[in-house]
Amino acid sequence: MSSKNICITLQYDGSRYDGWQKQGNTENTIQGKLETMLTQLFEQPIEVNGSGRTDAGVHAVGQTANFVVNTPYGPGKILELMNRYLPKDIAVTDAKVADARFHARLNARSKTYVYRISTGFVRPVFGRQQILYLPETLDVEAMRKAAEYLIGEHDFTSFCGNKHMKKSCVRTITSIDIEEVTTTLGDAEYEELRLTFTGNGFLQNMVRILTGTLLEIGEGARKPEEMAAILAAKNRESAGPMAPAHGLTLWKVEY
Amino acid sequence: MSSKNICITLQYDGSRYDGWQKQGNTENTIQGKLETMLTQLFEQPIEVNGSGRTDAGVHAVGQTANFVVNTPYGPGKILELMNRYLPKDIAVTDAKVADARFHARLNARSKTYVYRISTGFVRPVFGRQQILYLPETLDVEAMRKAAEYLIGEHDFTSFCGNKHMKKSCVRTITSIDIEEVTTTLGDAEYEELRLTFTGNGFLQNMVRILTGTLLEIGEGARKPEEMAAILAAKNRESAGPMAPAHGLTLWKVEY
Repeated sequence: MSSKNICITLQYDGSRYDGWQKQGNTENTIQGKLETMLTQLFEQPIEVNGSGRTDAGVHAVGQTANFVVNTPYGPGKILELMNRYLPKDIAVTDAKVADARFHARLNARSKTYVYRISTGFVRPVFGRQQILYLPETLDVEAMRKAAEYLIGEHDFTSFCGNKHMKKSCVRTITSIDIEEVTTTLGDAEYEELRLTFTGNGFLQNMVRILTGTLLEIGEGARKPEEMAAILAAKNRESAGPMAPAHGLTLWKVEY
Repeated sequence: MSSKNICITLQYDGSRYDGWQKQGNTENTIQGKLETMLTQLFEQPIEVNGSGRTDAGVHAVGQTANFVVNTPYGPGKILELMNRYLPKDIAVTDAKVADARFHARLNARSKTYVYRISTGFVRPVFGRQQILYLPETLDVEAMRKAAEYLIGEHDFTSFCGNKHMKKSCVRTITSIDIEEVTTTLGDAEYEELRLTFTGNGFLQNMVRILTGTLLEIGEGARKPEEMAAILAAKNRESAGPMAPAHGLTLWKVEY
């Protein structure tokens, strides 16, 4: 037996979970499901470090996590066993042995989130759990202009959902791409707006509040130029509402 | 007010329904949902003719149906109203006014069904409700060879799920395409086998029994050449099992 630090990549449909983070006596979290399963599987207490929390209802196609386990098995076998016992809405897509000092949260350098909005005339049936339906004409150029104010290192207090945040709210956003995408399914066409946020880290609810504020600008309720004042206010009340969880997916974590 | 024959195209996620066809006192069918909603919406009894039944759990991206309604509204407005009142797993993607004699079932000339099988190492999380997970190495060439026996006009009694079928079981299959498709989501790759069946009509459970039999051949449990004898037997017991409903989607109906 040898102690291994296993780094995994995960996909999950967050619809029925209370988010990533284990909380008190609710086990209905992704972290809770993983720890319970791994502890039973390897007959030893196992703690899982995620790259970060995802809110209740938020999905992942590239969440990362690590855990230390005493096992003779290699990572391929561990991936196979985990997928055998995980519920159908969580899957391990990659597993490798990492350096003993590797920590999925502390070593993360960059994260990418995608927020999807279906804007067409017909509500999508397939994949509806992973996209916000908002059949409106949005001023995409105004949204792109507003997004430019957010790029770089800023104090994002205005976009932090945790009112009791004691630590620094300074983060760096390296890019916000706003794409108009048309997908087809059979003879039907679906218009989609896809917001891709990349940065060195995001505060609680931050991507959803950024999205909600950008949507207000897209709807013409605010001007793109107001973004500078919203940032400067360092006050949650200056920003827009929080967009619904189900449109958001943690796409990638880089080290 | 004028009487209009409205032809609609529908997408639905069949997961939670007892199939297309209204049955006795269960309203939990696609046809039942449509008729109840239309009857309330237009305050007149409305009957909906589908192009054909889909089994419980089977999906559609291009089901067609027609109904006659007395209304001043045009098809665009009817589509909008229907989508406003339909549940989120059913959507009308197209509506037009058809000739008074048009009947979605009687005038259908060709139907296409797609059966999707995920064959890779990792179970897909997203879209899992529309694909069968079968992590096996299948002999795709043997499946293609077997499929050739099915092309053309045949008596498909061996592939009919209705044991009390009194009418002719002769149908024409114009093509069966078996494609190996790789899709990616984030850094994960998913291997998929996609079976596309086109013909002038299909018997009850027929596509699922064809798929189940082709899968037995892909698994090496039967030889492709046996397909000739299975057809000739005209006996349901000679064919393979019925593949699960959730992998099947009615893709297109042509007139």
